[in-house]
Amino acid sequence: MTRFDVVALDADDTLWHNETLFTATQTQFRDLLVRYRDVEWIDRRLYETETRNLRHFGYGVKGFTLSMIETAIELTEGRVTGAEVQRIIDLGREMLAAPVELLDGVAETVAALAARYRLVLLTKGDLFDQESKLARSGLGEAFAAVEIVSEKDARTYAAVMTRQRVEPARFVMVGNSLRSDVLPVLEAGGAAVHIPYHVTWQHEQVADDALAGKEFARLATLRDLPAWLGDDA
Amino acid sequence: MTRFDVVALDADDTLWHNETLFTATQTQFRDLLVRYRDVEWIDRRLYETETRNLRHFGYGVKGFTLSMIETAIELTEGRVTGAEVQRIIDLGREMLAAPVELLDGVAETVAALAARYRLVLLTKGDLFDQESKLARSGLGEAFAAVEIVSEKDARTYAAVMTRQRVEPARFVMVGNSLRSDVLPVLEAGGAAVHIPYHVTWQHEQVADDALAGKEFARLATLRDLPAWLGDDA
Repeated sequence: MTRFDVVALDADDTLWHNETLFTATQTQFRDLLVRYRDVEWIDRRLYETETRNLRHFGYGVKGFTLSMIETAIELTEGRVTGAEVQRIIDLGREMLAAPVELLDGVAETVAALAARYRLVLLTKGDLFDQESKLARSGLGEAFAAVEIVSEKDARTYAAVMTRQRVEPARFVMVGNSLRSDVLPVLEAGGAAVHIPYHVTWQHEQVADDALAGKEFARLATLRDLPAWLGDDA
Repeated sequence: MTRFDVVALDADDTLWHNETLFTATQTQFRDLLVRYRDVEWIDRRLYETETRNLRHFGYGVKGFTLSMIETAIELTEGRVTGAEVQRIIDLGREMLAAPVELLDGVAETVAALAARYRLVLLTKGDLFDQESKLARSGLGEAFAAVEIVSEKDARTYAAVMTRQRVEPARFVMVGNSLRSDVLPVLEAGGAAVHIPYHVTWQHEQVADDALAGKEFARLATLRDLPAWLGDDA
């Protein structure tokens, strides 16, 4: 008998690369504006604008694009040109159209998991963009349900467990973010597996002491998940 | 015995005013740019930009805001100022923060319906914005489920019926858009009730011949829905 009924997988930076795309875009954004301000100033101001705008725009590429535009206006004191703003919108559109690159081992591992568990894709961000990425990923058929949520907190996890008709103890969440994929699911009574990605957005970072006394697994890659779940037994 | 198990309600312009907010914002957008171009040109170009961007951005305020910015750059041939672009971003943020104004009779009708049916809120648009509006509407508790989708086509309705475990014949959709709330649900085997709003976004308009041979109800206001459902009997 398996220990879990539902295995929920995060998407960005768990199934496919995402933060690297933001990082690459941010580099182009810097290049565009470096004649106005130094790189450190640009980065700091962009992060401040993003954070301030989260409560208005939520997560995702469109909100990020609006934050890049707003940062450009602020740091050029309004001197940013129409062509530069257009270039920023184009950067956003390029992000939305970028190929979905699966992490190593994801395709075969997801297929193997789908044969044994009820798999749920559980991701936050922009509905339209996440659905589009899932469709392009080729993984769509493996998931029994797709839950795209605006924030991953304990209340969200409890609601997902109710909707998926699963006891908290029979639910495990797998993802790259301690803040979104690990801590709140533990709070909701589920289990969590952390699979770090090599870059973490500043907003998703948590202080070490927030992890004190928390029990969760950490794996190097999704390939290790079936063995951790005990499927080799 | 009731004829339906699930009553699905659209949100924007069915439960609360929405298109009027877009219309008011578009008036401010025109005022901002009228020194560059005439009003007709601005409106036509904005609609073209919006339509072209739908496949990149999907529906919602953030995509609309990006389309306003792009239109402003195009129609000023890049001469738009940083302050004008900032004003457009502020217009978008004001839309997201605008009070949610329920249509007449909605609060009591939704409460009455919730006592007899499994009510589902079924809306397209931006996840973050729609969740925020639902929370502010005060109607959240009335709904057994909330489905925010990126597009309302027959496939979407079929998926919703499956998720909600309801036979198509026991499902009725109620909304203001013939294109999104009526035609595709009929195609998926459900019933539909059209409650027109006094303004319809050009994109949601359908040609008269698309309605030939279609059977659905048309009511003047949501207040008439309980009687149509037979709840007076």
